[in-house]
Amino acid sequence: MADQINVGIVGTQFMGRAHSNAYRRVADFFDLPARPVLRAACDVDAAGLKEFSKRFGWQEQETSWQKVVARDDIDLIDICTPNVLHMPIAVAAAKAGKHVLCEKPIAMNADEARQMLEAARDNDVRHMVGFNYRRVPAIALAKHLIDQGKIGRVFHFNAVYYQDWLVDPDFPYVWRHDIKKGGSGAHGDMNAHIVDLARLLVGEIEAVCGEQEIFIKERRLPDSSGKGTVTADDAMVFLARFCDGALGSFIATRFATGRKNFLRLELFGSEGSLVFNLERLNELEFYCRADEGPEQGYRNILVTESTHPFVKAWWPPGHIIGWEHTFVHEIRDLLVAIAEENEVKPDFYDGLRNQQVLDAVCESSQQHRWVTIPPS
Amino acid sequence: MADQINVGIVGTQFMGRAHSNAYRRVADFFDLPARPVLRAACDVDAAGLKEFSKRFGWQEQETSWQKVVARDDIDLIDICTPNVLHMPIAVAAAKAGKHVLCEKPIAMNADEARQMLEAARDNDVRHMVGFNYRRVPAIALAKHLIDQGKIGRVFHFNAVYYQDWLVDPDFPYVWRHDIKKGGSGAHGDMNAHIVDLARLLVGEIEAVCGEQEIFIKERRLPDSSGKGTVTADDAMVFLARFCDGALGSFIATRFATGRKNFLRLELFGSEGSLVFNLERLNELEFYCRADEGPEQGYRNILVTESTHPFVKAWWPPGHIIGWEHTFVHEIRDLLVAIAEENEVKPDFYDGLRNQQVLDAVCESSQQHRWVTIPPS
Amino acid sequence: MADQINVGIVGTQFMGRAHSNAYRRVADFFDLPARPVLRAACDVDAAGLKEFSKRFGWQEQETSWQKVVARDDIDLIDICTPNVLHMPIAVAAAKAGKHVLCEKPIAMNADEARQMLEAARDNDVRHMVGFNYRRVPAIALAKHLIDQGKIGRVFHFNAVYYQDWLVDPDFPYVWRHDIKKGGSGAHGDMNAHIVDLARLLVGEIEAVCGEQEIFIKERRLPDSSGKGTVTADDAMVFLARFCDGALGSFIATRFATGRKNFLRLELFGSEGSLVFNLERLNELEFYCRADEGPEQGYRNILVTESTHPFVKAWWPPGHIIGWEHTFVHEIRDLLVAIAEENEVKPDFYDGLRNQQVLDAVCESSQQHRWVTIPPS
Amino acid sequence: MADQINVGIVGTQFMGRAHSNAYRRVADFFDLPARPVLRAACDVDAAGLKEFSKRFGWQEQETSWQKVVARDDIDLIDICTPNVLHMPIAVAAAKAGKHVLCEKPIAMNADEARQMLEAARDNDVRHMVGFNYRRVPAIALAKHLIDQGKIGRVFHFNAVYYQDWLVDPDFPYVWRHDIKKGGSGAHGDMNAHIVDLARLLVGEIEAVCGEQEIFIKERRLPDSSGKGTVTADDAMVFLARFCDGALGSFIATRFATGRKNFLRLELFGSEGSLVFNLERLNELEFYCRADEGPEQGYRNILVTESTHPFVKAWWPPGHIIGWEHTFVHEIRDLLVAIAEENEVKPDFYDGLRNQQVLDAVCESSQQHRWVTIPPS
Repeated sequence: MADQINVGIVGTQFMGRAHSNAYRRVADFFDLPARPVLRAACDVDAAGLKEFSKRFGWQEQETSWQKVVARDDIDLIDICTPNVLHMPIAVAAAKAGKHVLCEKPIAMNADEARQMLEAARDNDVRHMVGFNYRRVPAIALAKHLIDQGKIGRVFHFNAVYYQDWLVDPDFPYVWRHDIKKGGSGAHGDMNAHIVDLARLLVGEIEAVCGEQEIFIKERRLPDSSGKGTVTADDAMVFLARFCDGALGSFIATRFATGRKNFLRLELFGSEGSLVFNLERLNELEFYCRADEGPEQGYRNILVTESTHPFVKAWWPPGHIIGWEHTFVHEIRDLLVAIAEENEVKPDFYDGLRNQQVLDAVCESSQQHRWVTIPPS
Repeated sequence: MADQINVGIVGTQFMGRAHSNAYRRVADFFDLPARPVLRAACDVDAAGLKEFSKRFGWQEQETSWQKVVARDDIDLIDICTPNVLHMPIAVAAAKAGKHVLCEKPIAMNADEARQMLEAARDNDVRHMVGFNYRRVPAIALAKHLIDQGKIGRVFHFNAVYYQDWLVDPDFPYVWRHDIKKGGSGAHGDMNAHIVDLARLLVGEIEAVCGEQEIFIKERRLPDSSGKGTVTADDAMVFLARFCDGALGSFIATRFATGRKNFLRLELFGSEGSLVFNLERLNELEFYCRADEGPEQGYRNILVTESTHPFVKAWWPPGHIIGWEHTFVHEIRDLLVAIAEENEVKPDFYDGLRNQQVLDAVCESSQQHRWVTIPPS
Repeated sequence: MADQINVGIVGTQFMGRAHSNAYRRVADFFDLPARPVLRAACDVDAAGLKEFSKRFGWQEQETSWQKVVARDDIDLIDICTPNVLHMPIAVAAAKAGKHVLCEKPIAMNADEARQMLEAARDNDVRHMVGFNYRRVPAIALAKHLIDQGKIGRVFHFNAVYYQDWLVDPDFPYVWRHDIKKGGSGAHGDMNAHIVDLARLLVGEIEAVCGEQEIFIKERRLPDSSGKGTVTADDAMVFLARFCDGALGSFIATRFATGRKNFLRLELFGSEGSLVFNLERLNELEFYCRADEGPEQGYRNILVTESTHPFVKAWWPPGHIIGWEHTFVHEIRDLLVAIAEENEVKPDFYDGLRNQQVLDAVCESSQQHRWVTIPPS
Repeated sequence: MADQINVGIVGTQFMGRAHSNAYRRVADFFDLPARPVLRAACDVDAAGLKEFSKRFGWQEQETSWQKVVARDDIDLIDICTPNVLHMPIAVAAAKAGKHVLCEKPIAMNADEARQMLEAARDNDVRHMVGFNYRRVPAIALAKHLIDQGKIGRVFHFNAVYYQDWLVDPDFPYVWRHDIKKGGSGAHGDMNAHIVDLARLLVGEIEAVCGEQEIFIKERRLPDSSGKGTVTADDAMVFLARFCDGALGSFIATRFATGRKNFLRLELFGSEGSLVFNLERLNELEFYCRADEGPEQGYRNILVTESTHPFVKAWWPPGHIIGWEHTFVHEIRDLLVAIAEENEVKPDFYDGLRNQQVLDAVCESSQQHRWVTIPPS
């Protein structure tokens, strides 16, 4: 087994930065069977690419993703592009025998996702979707508690993802407002995350019923040449019924004034409950019906103990970690999976199932009725 | 104008106690144009009625509500019975020229509610529905801030009402589990409250789409003679579209393990936001976009200042009040309205509109589609 | 045993109102061996007394406390006057064979407190000091948990009592600013409470070292005739060593801008910890080292269950009570003690021990050294 | 000006890791006039040193700090050793013309600190003490608000620093328990931090009065050969009077069961207040008396906006950072100061003043009296 994994990254914006940071930090804190090598970065914006590569130490630069995918000296393709490019890059990479890490949502629709999954399986490469919140230690602890039966049968999964950066009516029209370029808006960006956590923590969703809204219909063009018509959703809310009978409620919006990156989960079960908020991601609230009656109460667990998932690699108890650390955990697990030739989750199958839910919600919101999720 | 208002109360359980307490306390803290006289209490359970009357100082006892309604020495009929009796008592009382305070939900359905409204209007009596949470000082402050434009246009109204007393599978089958006797379950009991607050704070609802669940289908009969089949909902969740374009999300459940009486409102608007939680009812969170940028944040307003609604009557700042005080405020405003011959809100019109929403949600959950609220 | 206890109250301001409310409510919610009768109220302000008596139903009025104490038809004297009158009234009442409830701090100094204790003992009357916070359900639960050994040996007792009503420099000079009339300022008013809770929850204090401050030295006279020199402390902070080895930290201030009635306790012990805040008095935080390691966290216990102290008398879980309810609990226990001829705590012995600590802190702050509390 | 700064680090434990991480990350996120080069690492433990160097990319290894200090290819000496070595290394480094970053507390006592300050000044090198919490964005924002007059005159500075890792009686005896080897215990480790924040946010301290405790007097030796007597404090509490009249309260303890790294500041001022907690270091609470009366409340500012100190370099709003980021900020400012030949704070003067306060508290706790801080 090689002790290095050569990485090629496509896309150098927000996610490109977050992934780069993870590659550069992971070996400082985790023991790895193979270290990542930041081999090549790719972006159509050559100037930005140069600056990005210098900053994060990417050895070479490419402006064509096809060239990166074709290089012999790359083992892993990391896709941080706009959603519309996820499928073509991932499929090409898999066909070229590269492992693939793809940002979320996996694709523009379930058909694309299925092509990606099939390409990955057919070519026997590792595949992962960047649902990084699975690897918040508090979320991983929640999963562990659920697997131990600590909250029993789940009755309710209520999730919200609140941001507010579109409340400002002067925020200009950008490609994200165009459904043709970005796919859905808040839905694909934010509901994708909480749907993934729902699948992780509760299980598959049977049917959904959604409603979307565009609160500000037109926005000024950045060059002040006029106005653009917003076609991507500002907010999408939906109800869900899980296959095991739990009820779900999901809200994603960029119009939650005052909330910046507020992702709250509430799981109520027959034996206990869990509450999580991404803005306080080092904490997990846990209610345990097994506690003595008069002493029952939501425990605020500070998830910074060495016995908590991922934490041992970092700092002593109470020394909190940040949002970016979730990517380090994700990259760590991916590198180990590649080196040891094991599966890693969430993979393209999860991406496909996630996308099927997202698609069903969109269909539901257009047709104003419940839509059943197809079998995988 | 008489300086006394003679009250007859029907129903001596939970709400009967809460209302009795309010009548007994209101004049100790508020200046009133007319004091309430606890003239007669009524219940079919004669033994319980006697104990209740003695405890709260009701002067006389009746076991037939018809007799109470017929008495000449009663000015105000206070209805604290199971829902199925709301309409017949309220209509009879109005026809007898009595003012009426009726607990929520106003009726078994909108038709009943309309009969009540018409009876009250035809007979020119005061009518009020017991949506007491309008008179939590923090809610009244929220209304005041909204009316001042402090949060601007509302984008989202997200409300939950969580309790957990049915999580215990050994909790026995009672009349509340029978839809024929109690009407809906969590829906009529809990969604009724948050729908009222939605109408107060945002405005009328245009359409809804709901889903209900009964998590435990059978429960043991109290006399251990067998099991009863639960027909009333354990939980009801629904989406809503408000007439002014806001999106709404409502969740009512008695299966929110660890939450006892947790009613949370989140209103996000173009100029600010508001968050409220009934378990901390002396607090209101307010986010104000007009604050200087780097200093913006959710303010936790301790709503105990003499400048806050209703508070001046009570204690100095920081000396919190309890849940029961909301009834004192409600009774106070009703007594003033009766004495001064003014309108008081929420009245039977609000009760009817509320019931129309509740009915539409039920219809929606049965037919698995969106249902439009009829014009009033 | 008589089924009525005739009460005479002296003082009709803030505490007079709080006590009156308690007498009027206690029998509505608690079963009592003897009901209180609001026999006579006393104040030197005849006009205010009339209004007060009418509002709260005091049957008769007196403007001389000596007369109230001398009446044959009074069983219990309730002292709500300025501190300087506590001792003379209490001693006279005890000598007249009356039971005595006295507001806190018990007296102007420990000598006075001792006279009160001796008078009460010599005349075999019930005696109680109004440290009402002992009967916040959350505090009573804390005491219960401590008595069960749930937090083990206490290492730290850190308490603060924050108010802010003197921050406004335009707040006028009143008698409370004059040390001769009011005794100490924040110290006697606020530290008295947290010292009582320290004694209740941890035990006796061995030695103290304090420091006081008057932040605004002069204030305008209410009649605008000039300025008064403030001699009572605005803030008093002190360290303490408990007899059992625990360390204590106490802060009382009326200059804690933004805090209205914020009394926070933090107890750290060998087996667990407790945190309480009076502005959220229905909650108690409890950390339990016996919980499984990865699941340890501060539990937020909503102290509204029927299994919690005092709660059963009130409302269902999650329906919070207010500050004033503590007085109902206090009066309830006092009435039972009188009727059943039992001891009741906190009594004048507790008041004396409390005053000895307060006096020692004052001496310490004047002499800038540690002062040992004398044996009782 | 060189575009590289060669660093030699002495000490490879907890702080060595935190500093190494900072050197490796700072240029990824901040534009720097000169990049750090991780030239040499030093520790007496050769095996640990090798592992550490490999992990964090230190180019060379030394087991003698004297050799590191003597090397020509080092510009900056970073001292992460036990406290007893701070002075000799810092003085030697300064004399060798190296810039010096020294962990806190600066020294074993003020005499040592003064030697360090003089050596640094005499040799005209940059000097900094590792009070990293100054560069928590929320703390830097607090400082900014204070400098703008937003809280006015400070009345109270109440700080606690709670940890609990010594509560376990089975935790073994280590060098930190020996006052001769580690200097003070919780005091030097934890009070040093909150004293620094006090000086930053309020100003110089005039006098102090402290009390220490060792709750567990003996601990088993790690090799099970017997027991060691603990001589370093488990907890130190003290009162302070600031030169400008504010009152201070400080608590540092390793026996605060359930608190892991809980550093809470409360500043109450004439115009507003601030509250901070290190376990939620992305948040700052701010109360502003200039807000309209009924809308006043503690604002919870999520300090993750690009307008907040240091934040722009990182992630979008709401994407929280961790404890370790404070070191990146510290190193960034130090590197800039070195490159641009400017002052940087907190420097050895701050370290000296800090140490004088710590020393005075120790003296006070031994002599049980107030001790005045000497002029600098």
